[in-house]
Amino acid sequence: MNRYKLTISYDGTCYSGWQVQPKHVTVQQLLQDALKTITGERVVVHGSGRTDQGVHARGQVAHLDLHKPLPCEKLQKSLNGVLPQDIRILKAQRATASFDARRGAVSKEYRYFIWNADVVPPFLRLYRTHIRTPLDVDAMARAAKHLVGRHDFAAFTANSRRVMESTTRNLTELKVKRQGKEIVIVTRSNGFLYKMVRSFAGFLIKVGKGDVKPAEAGNVLASRQRTTRVPTAKPEGLFLWSVRYPRA
Amino acid sequence: MNRYKLTISYDGTCYSGWQVQPKHVTVQQLLQDALKTITGERVVVHGSGRTDQGVHARGQVAHLDLHKPLPCEKLQKSLNGVLPQDIRILKAQRATASFDARRGAVSKEYRYFIWNADVVPPFLRLYRTHIRTPLDVDAMARAAKHLVGRHDFAAFTANSRRVMESTTRNLTELKVKRQGKEIVIVTRSNGFLYKMVRSFAGFLIKVGKGDVKPAEAGNVLASRQRTTRVPTAKPEGLFLWSVRYPRA
Repeated sequence: MNRYKLTISYDGTCYSGWQVQPKHVTVQQLLQDALKTITGERVVVHGSGRTDQGVHARGQVAHLDLHKPLPCEKLQKSLNGVLPQDIRILKAQRATASFDARRGAVSKEYRYFIWNADVVPPFLRLYRTHIRTPLDVDAMARAAKHLVGRHDFAAFTANSRRVMESTTRNLTELKVKRQGKEIVIVTRSNGFLYKMVRSFAGFLIKVGKGDVKPAEAGNVLASRQRTTRVPTAKPEGLFLWSVRYPRA
Repeated sequence: MNRYKLTISYDGTCYSGWQVQPKHVTVQQLLQDALKTITGERVVVHGSGRTDQGVHARGQVAHLDLHKPLPCEKLQKSLNGVLPQDIRILKAQRATASFDARRGAVSKEYRYFIWNADVVPPFLRLYRTHIRTPLDVDAMARAAKHLVGRHDFAAFTANSRRVMESTTRNLTELKVKRQGKEIVIVTRSNGFLYKMVRSFAGFLIKVGKGDVKPAEAGNVLASRQRTTRVPTAKPEGLFLWSVRYPRA
């Protein structure tokens, strides 16, 4: 078997997320279809994690195995030739047989982009969450600080998880900064729960609007209960930014 | 009559250009339809100039008259409420009765964006012309210099013009610069001919590829003949960037 590592960028607007689902068009499905076209092999593409419907990826990482080896450049070019323009293979590399895109990841970075002004430029309309109300970025940044570290994040995940599964994670970064009319939330962890980043964004937007005090972040976390203080923010502002692996 | 000045940004991907045409969806048409919905008036929206099918605008300017006055903010918000997200009113201002978006313009700036690498990021796929061959930007910049100034630009326009119309224009700026994988052509004039900017881009791309020498620019200009040395570059990289008017 020949293992490959792919770095993939996609515009999630038109897809029902990453993972294969019957009767839905997904990124994983299109990649597997493209590989079938190119190699004739039925291949499973293993992503570093799922992204939900409408969520984008700047640098998703996946691994796959081929029976017949193919030069990396050829694999990349052929895939980009077959795939639609909103899914691009940025890099194709050979990987060791033990490389696992999900289990091997040291950390992932997500970025959530808010356009905080009256009018979203048309060229960004698919890639920004639009919030007209001026947001208090300092308050958002203060609230974010309470969430960094090793915590039980049950209050910041959608409740589709099995009861016994741990909701404790180590959040190494959660920063909020303003860049002109744009607000960016940058977050990094060795593992994110289901809808965790959009829950952070939803909560921080509430803080930015003044609906929730920054110091409440600690209480929300400690409650381990999902409440209306933590809505799930829209998918279009969210990007899986990058995935880190140990140096080979 | 109450005259208004609109600053408009649009993603040209889905439109048959600016100007109203039977059986085509155009930006001017959608603006006029939106104004009819909001005011009940049949209004003609006069743009600073046309943009072709697939060409974008960061800052198109137009004027229009309303029988019943409307506060500017209300006009802007109502239009943005009715228009699709890929057409946005950035600004609505009152204008004097003599303000004319086309005749009053002092100059216009266009920018043409080339993505000069193997893979276009999916988020830019609609806004960049993709050229894989590495382009020699210095050669392009040298060729561009020959074109600046007052010249007969007959060699750089599509031949749909009437014979008697002057093809002399004053080109005040034509610059080429590289920003990482991107090449930007910036040009300014008090008036552009039909498909002139895309002709500049097509010619400069040929120079960048080494197919035409930079010094040939002067000969091409002097020939006043459209030849294969001047192809029309694709529309997706082109933006009407801004329109300047005398200070009121």
